[in-house]
Amino acid sequence: MPSVTLYACATGPNPPKVAYLLEELGIDYAVKSLQFGEGDDSKPGVKHPSFLAINPNGRVPAIVDHKNGDFCVWESGAILQYLAETYGPQYIGSGKEKWEVIEWLAFQISGHGPMQGQVNYFKHFFSKIWGEDCSPTIVKRFETETYRVYGVLENQLKKQQQLGSEYIVGKGFTIADMSFHGWLRTHAFAGLDLTDFPLLKAYISRIESKETVQRANKKIADASA
Amino acid sequence: MPSVTLYACATGPNPPKVAYLLEELGIDYAVKSLQFGEGDDSKPGVKHPSFLAINPNGRVPAIVDHKNGDFCVWESGAILQYLAETYGPQYIGSGKEKWEVIEWLAFQISGHGPMQGQVNYFKHFFSKIWGEDCSPTIVKRFETETYRVYGVLENQLKKQQQLGSEYIVGKGFTIADMSFHGWLRTHAFAGLDLTDFPLLKAYISRIESKETVQRANKKIADASA
Repeated sequence: MPSVTLYACATGPNPPKVAYLLEELGIDYAVKSLQFGEGDDSKPGVKHPSFLAINPNGRVPAIVDHKNGDFCVWESGAILQYLAETYGPQYIGSGKEKWEVIEWLAFQISGHGPMQGQVNYFKHFFSKIWGEDCSPTIVKRFETETYRVYGVLENQLKKQQQLGSEYIVGKGFTIADMSFHGWLRTHAFAGLDLTDFPLLKAYISRIESKETVQRANKKIADASA
Repeated sequence: MPSVTLYACATGPNPPKVAYLLEELGIDYAVKSLQFGEGDDSKPGVKHPSFLAINPNGRVPAIVDHKNGDFCVWESGAILQYLAETYGPQYIGSGKEKWEVIEWLAFQISGHGPMQGQVNYFKHFFSKIWGEDCSPTIVKRFETETYRVYGVLENQLKKQQQLGSEYIVGKGFTIADMSFHGWLRTHAFAGLDLTDFPLLKAYISRIESKETVQRANKKIADASA
């Protein structure tokens, strides 16, 4: 029996965030990869009643913490905070730094993910789902906002570099970095170009090269194969 | 000198969330209402250097906590958590309930706000900003997703009603409710219809009728007049 079950899917930038933290914490976890839609009892999807009992919003990631009475937590931002506060406070920081981690985490889940997600949606999925092409201006609107977010990150990395740090907040790898990385590493799928963001480009490569990040991504890919 | 300065704007569903909590906590706060763009030194906007020093993302809300060394916090989700944990733990809960509050809060800022925000954007602002009309299908895509979120809330309120609660989580008014209310109360501006969500409709009226909520909304309106 693993300590934690992580519900994920084959693609999707949010489940890996949680796997990065589980790897960093050295927690024994199993990945269950779900398909879209309801599926059936033999292969339940994210909208199947058995999963809606875990996450009423029918989305991944969600976790079940078997060491804490099978406690269910959903929403990547909440899961990262729960696991860090419970099992590895160094990943969320303390004192004022904790609030800096949480504000950058909140910015990632509310300002970065949804905008880059719309770039993906309108480039890759909209016409198949709705049966019409969309104006290039729609894509441009979401690209513009995502690049604005990249600019905020580039500035922050510059400030942090001057303080001798390679991370978004403080001196170490925190849940703010994990949250951003889930999405940043998929910039190419969204067709986003990093030429104007050299510090961000180097930061993504550094995080991607961590052994914990590589193991986490492989574990989700293997569970989805 | 107020205990807290809250940066807000005339419209916008996020600053009121923070004002609701400040009213509930009985904290003495001043509202500074900023305009869009950079503005100038006499009337700085959200992109003015003086405000970017408080929030590098150039958005409201942000707070300065004068009782904590002028500590700045930005992102509504982070501010709500900071103020509740620091000054009113009952508004975030404890034990497992705390994580339920945080997961619903995370869902509001990442899944609800950005989608209802796009309904507004494409109905009210897109054609003025980009100089072209958008296909009704674009609006429909974001309305569909927002109504899906409303359905998740309707189900949750039904479960809570069976447990004897009028709130999203637990038995009392928490930062999860405050976060949802900032956006839910503006459903009419987005042209969203609540006919299919009777419990949600009644919930919005109940929250809106709270004295603290009314005082908070008035204080932001007055500061923006």
